[in-house]
Amino acid sequence: MRSEFQFINDIKKRFSLTHIGDDCAVLPKDAELDLLITTDLLIENIDFRLDWATPRDIGYKSLAVSLSDIAAMGGTPTHALISLGVPENLWKGRFLDEFYEGWHSLANEFQVELIGGDVSSVPGKLVIDSIVLGEVLKDKALLRSGAKAGDQIYVSGTLGGAAAGLRILEAPNSKKSDKLIQKQLRPVPQVALGKQLRKLGIVNAMIDISDGLSSDIRHICEASGVGAIIEADHLPIDSQISADLFENDNLLEFALNGGEDFGLLFTTTENNESLAGNLPITNIGTVTNTGKVEIKNGDKVQELSPGGFRHF
Amino acid sequence: MRSEFQFINDIKKRFSLTHIGDDCAVLPKDAELDLLITTDLLIENIDFRLDWATPRDIGYKSLAVSLSDIAAMGGTPTHALISLGVPENLWKGRFLDEFYEGWHSLANEFQVELIGGDVSSVPGKLVIDSIVLGEVLKDKALLRSGAKAGDQIYVSGTLGGAAAGLRILEAPNSKKSDKLIQKQLRPVPQVALGKQLRKLGIVNAMIDISDGLSSDIRHICEASGVGAIIEADHLPIDSQISADLFENDNLLEFALNGGEDFGLLFTTTENNESLAGNLPITNIGTVTNTGKVEIKNGDKVQELSPGGFRHF
Repeated sequence: MRSEFQFINDIKKRFSLTHIGDDCAVLPKDAELDLLITTDLLIENIDFRLDWATPRDIGYKSLAVSLSDIAAMGGTPTHALISLGVPENLWKGRFLDEFYEGWHSLANEFQVELIGGDVSSVPGKLVIDSIVLGEVLKDKALLRSGAKAGDQIYVSGTLGGAAAGLRILEAPNSKKSDKLIQKQLRPVPQVALGKQLRKLGIVNAMIDISDGLSSDIRHICEASGVGAIIEADHLPIDSQISADLFENDNLLEFALNGGEDFGLLFTTTENNESLAGNLPITNIGTVTNTGKVEIKNGDKVQELSPGGFRHF
Repeated sequence: MRSEFQFINDIKKRFSLTHIGDDCAVLPKDAELDLLITTDLLIENIDFRLDWATPRDIGYKSLAVSLSDIAAMGGTPTHALISLGVPENLWKGRFLDEFYEGWHSLANEFQVELIGGDVSSVPGKLVIDSIVLGEVLKDKALLRSGAKAGDQIYVSGTLGGAAAGLRILEAPNSKKSDKLIQKQLRPVPQVALGKQLRKLGIVNAMIDISDGLSSDIRHICEASGVGAIIEADHLPIDSQISADLFENDNLLEFALNGGEDFGLLFTTTENNESLAGNLPITNIGTVTNTGKVEIKNGDKVQELSPGGFRHF
């Protein structure tokens, strides 16, 4: 069965779609700016659960995941729309009021205005489509496709926290770490960092960590026609994970395949390493010309399978 | 229980949202143009059924309903995104390939380019969010809010055909009219007419017939702070309905409350009636200052309840 990534590639080829394949679509806006647009579909019991997250958490995260897509292009979010498919039991109560409160708490922080949407009843579970518009200086959007062999690979923040938080929510009898749960429920979109990196002019390719590092680095490699080698020892694994909770052998799995940390993953030429010095980022590997995505763990190098969450 | 229209009004007031309330949101684009954006959520077994419509029909209609929103603003559609929540059984087969073929058959006609979207698995039924961008001359978008007492009310095309087609699909033992079924499955967005009306400069308020005439005229009245009186005898009821199928007492019901005809409903000052003379439109009533939506049937005038499809 084809994965969703293969499916999107099939559709791109079949209908000659040139604008598809980055975190946002980029369209010309005016003489100075390009328009960014992204959409993220969130489905109850796949992307969130009502018994784990409050309505405010769900509203917050629905917007956060799309703001992260704008961040990954080095852009500024400006406007948003929400389409909601709502089961009747949620329509009747306070769910939607609290959902919009959570959504607006984040929107206000980024001065994003809600300008439209749709609302429908659904016979099944809650469905949310989050649509965010943004802008970026003309021709300056950071794409997945610019990585070059020899580039250094960086990631912002820490890895694995959101996945460990999800694990705690899935197994509520384990020791509870609010910090990790918050990383799962309230990810922080890296808009300011994305813009800062764009202004520094040092990024060759960028994406946000949504599917998981092992998948997201592959998206950059495929778009750029390059390979990559990731250094396991360099990964900035969230320190809360080992401090609180998990066996050491889970740490790498969380960091590589967990996803949803919504940090920024980018490549820069080796000469720019000093420019990156004062930012909350970590060098985790090198772009290669092998076409393969590999991981180096101690002396051992092996191929890194894309292991994050897959819908299909 | 509040209706979806009350809900949207609540959200607008609560969060001071000024851009919400028309068929599309309007944003400044550049010195000459405004940007239009609309989103429509379509849910299996509410908006379509897989045993009534082919995958191509569903792809076509997903785009058509959003193009109709652009038409209602007098705009030109340019780009689109699609978010799909797909049950596993549909993922495995040819459904999506044929869905995109149907979608592109209409997109090509209007030179609309697919620039993005999202795809997710769903535990329940198929979910489609259709997002379309368009453009219109700056400050020239046709809104719901400009109707004035004394305006004449016009509708394009015919009324009730899509609803009668749905009735046939719901009761497959009745005499089958392909023409009416096609009106349900393959509505034609009135983009050219919407632009023509905008260029004539005669429209004070406009909307498309999606919920049903009785609801859509009310949307115009509420946005404009006016009333309306509709002349039952003037309604251009689809002639196929009585020719083929239905008792006379159903005709008015289809025309008033059926919805999904996707014609354009607009008001113009009385002096402009001659300008409207050569267009496929019918005068169906008058804007009043009563604040009430009424219908005149013979000598009898009564209030017209909004009777189209409601989600809640």
